[in-house]
Amino acid sequence: MEAQVLKGFRDYLPADMLARQALIGRIRRVFERFGFAPIETPALEYSELLLGKYGEEGDKLLFRFLDNGQRDVSLRYDLTVPLARFLGANPQILPPFKRYHVAPVWRAEKPARGRFREFMQCDVDIVGVAEMTADAEVIATGMSALAEVLAGYAPGFTLRLSNRKLLNGLCERIGVPADHAHAVFRIIDKLDKQPEEAVKKQLEELLGVEKTPLVFDYLRCPATPDDVTPLARYFAGVAAGEEGIREISEVIALVRAHGLSNLALDLSIARGLDYYTGSIYETSLNGLPGFGSVMSGGRYDKLLDMFTGKPTPAVGISVGLDRLLAGLSELGLLDARETPTLALVTVFSPELRPYAMRIAQHLRQADLPTELYLPTDKLAKQFRYADRRKIPYALIAGPDEAQQEKVKVKTLASGEERELSLAELAEWARGVIS
Amino acid sequence: MEAQVLKGFRDYLPADMLARQALIGRIRRVFERFGFAPIETPALEYSELLLGKYGEEGDKLLFRFLDNGQRDVSLRYDLTVPLARFLGANPQILPPFKRYHVAPVWRAEKPARGRFREFMQCDVDIVGVAEMTADAEVIATGMSALAEVLAGYAPGFTLRLSNRKLLNGLCERIGVPADHAHAVFRIIDKLDKQPEEAVKKQLEELLGVEKTPLVFDYLRCPATPDDVTPLARYFAGVAAGEEGIREISEVIALVRAHGLSNLALDLSIARGLDYYTGSIYETSLNGLPGFGSVMSGGRYDKLLDMFTGKPTPAVGISVGLDRLLAGLSELGLLDARETPTLALVTVFSPELRPYAMRIAQHLRQADLPTELYLPTDKLAKQFRYADRRKIPYALIAGPDEAQQEKVKVKTLASGEERELSLAELAEWARGVIS
Repeated sequence: MEAQVLKGFRDYLPADMLARQALIGRIRRVFERFGFAPIETPALEYSELLLGKYGEEGDKLLFRFLDNGQRDVSLRYDLTVPLARFLGANPQILPPFKRYHVAPVWRAEKPARGRFREFMQCDVDIVGVAEMTADAEVIATGMSALAEVLAGYAPGFTLRLSNRKLLNGLCERIGVPADHAHAVFRIIDKLDKQPEEAVKKQLEELLGVEKTPLVFDYLRCPATPDDVTPLARYFAGVAAGEEGIREISEVIALVRAHGLSNLALDLSIARGLDYYTGSIYETSLNGLPGFGSVMSGGRYDKLLDMFTGKPTPAVGISVGLDRLLAGLSELGLLDARETPTLALVTVFSPELRPYAMRIAQHLRQADLPTELYLPTDKLAKQFRYADRRKIPYALIAGPDEAQQEKVKVKTLASGEERELSLAELAEWARGVIS
Repeated sequence: MEAQVLKGFRDYLPADMLARQALIGRIRRVFERFGFAPIETPALEYSELLLGKYGEEGDKLLFRFLDNGQRDVSLRYDLTVPLARFLGANPQILPPFKRYHVAPVWRAEKPARGRFREFMQCDVDIVGVAEMTADAEVIATGMSALAEVLAGYAPGFTLRLSNRKLLNGLCERIGVPADHAHAVFRIIDKLDKQPEEAVKKQLEELLGVEKTPLVFDYLRCPATPDDVTPLARYFAGVAAGEEGIREISEVIALVRAHGLSNLALDLSIARGLDYYTGSIYETSLNGLPGFGSVMSGGRYDKLLDMFTGKPTPAVGISVGLDRLLAGLSELGLLDARETPTLALVTVFSPELRPYAMRIAQHLRQADLPTELYLPTDKLAKQFRYADRRKIPYALIAGPDEAQQEKVKVKTLASGEERELSLAELAEWARGVIS
């Protein structure tokens, strides 16, 4: 039987999973520190709930089928539309509602290097708060999570901020009809992936050669988080633009009041999905230019209404866990352990297995991840096993040690050996853990 | 848009998820303490790899469909066949291999109370060890995980043990042809769900009225973990039975050497799946008779061979997380918190928001799950929010407190208030956490 992994999918080996779980654990702790509560939703939803939410392209990327009861169902494509469905199905949940959701999503994209059809999202969202305090709160939560995960990474990261209302203002100012706006946004969104010339050409095809330079005037507007007056000059008298400036300024001030300063304005951010209505943001690792965003999101004040039946503003941020892991790996910041095991208790001979088991129990009671060697093999083979798994310590007890209730502890990297009594094992284990 | 959850699926609200995550975290820590390493596999596999592994009934319960590339795919039905596929696809992994896997599986079963089409499994398996040391190790791991989770539960639990070789011996002794054996096992397996009379009738239909009493002689055999001689008498000269006794005795001795004694022999255990070849076990909560097994598994020495292409003995145990959660809930052992938040920082007036943010930062730096109230609302409404979410503490700072860098801490259950300085907040937060 050929043991083939499905195209576009992948297995996670222990080293991958240990890194992934550690990362998720740290991110989740930060989410909870900011008062977000976890939820889970089914992997499958009725297709009609998902269709039309991600644009035409998104619809085609759904894993969609008829189940055994002839229901038209699809695997979830993101965690945002399931949140909307969840709120509709659970009306007892009153806003403000702060939830986080860490779960896989599925998209039938063309597989490419680093792009898979199943990947993990870590989202926080605040539902029911129209004020910019919520935008700042999800941004601060995401930035705090990244700061924790990237603690040892000197170049750090930058959250780049924009606002859909600025983009609406741009369309208003240069006279782009409303039904062309999203097409313009999608072209601008390509600026970090395509050369400026290519983007310019696409804009010229859509808007003509006269209007296109006005778009680049906007994109080159030298506004900064400390000085938005160039934007104010550009948008003087343009209502949507002025509203966008007010919002972005308030968000910047609030995020800074959270004690976070690694923010930039980036007017080229547009975000692909149609549902954003206000703040939008992406995040770069400063030492990996061109690597793409590891954390993105924005405000979407209309999407939830159709499920909840009432005005339900919302804003969220999503950590791209798999891209972040790839980045950490590229930066050499991942621990490459292949097993949680820190100690292998060898078995000198079958008669001494009970004594080896007592040793293992002592270590496990002290919370040290410990393996007891299970097959009946020579000691040399047991040591080879420890080497192959990169287990740092081996414990050995022959008849003499068993007699005296002692054990030899060998550090495999150095070959160094010391003898401990059973009573001393717990303290030794605590030392290894810390 | 009607926000309907798909039939047989469910949402997990924050209270459910907090309990579930805490449980998974504790179980995972025990798995790692015993040296098991995590893996993950795709939710989708090629259907041909899953078909025929779970019996005819299982094949019908697969969520099976053609993907966009016309591949015949299915959602995974358990974590054991994916382990076999994983080992086949990753031949660099050499035995002995100890892995754990915590992940959802999907079965299109008829939905019923407490039975869902998506549920979580927590499996540990040891691959490549034919010795009973491995059976004892997975049993000890599972029992240690349950002991940790049920620490506050005085009646405790019992792992009930049997062995497929005893059942093969039974068939040998009473002359059941090999192709009827699994049918006999499946009928015996119903003993905990159906009255004895009903089971007897089914056996009589299959075996005739003469042989059926011999099955009940076996089932009533008064063997105990301390004394297997009644079994030895029953199986004298029956090779498979004698081998089963040898194995079960060795497993009992080894599990006890792990310091675990809440074991029973239960000859009525048969397990539904065909692939078991040796040890089989289930686990009951002592205070919930008839509740069903919360942790089960066994040895399956042939299943992996067809993927690895060589003899690959294996043994595993699986914690039924959702059933365990239902049991803990029935026993009143679940924490019913609806949010991780322990403190709500109220905002006295918009001008004082920056001071409220400073308070929140102090608490979060001390790792206390803290919410900052986000909308602009009166204090009374902010307190109602804390009540509704069952947040235990509210922090209040008016202009005087802000002026003096102080804050009032109110315990919402008692109404008690105390005043702290910003500098004292971290210590207070640490007290709340512990």
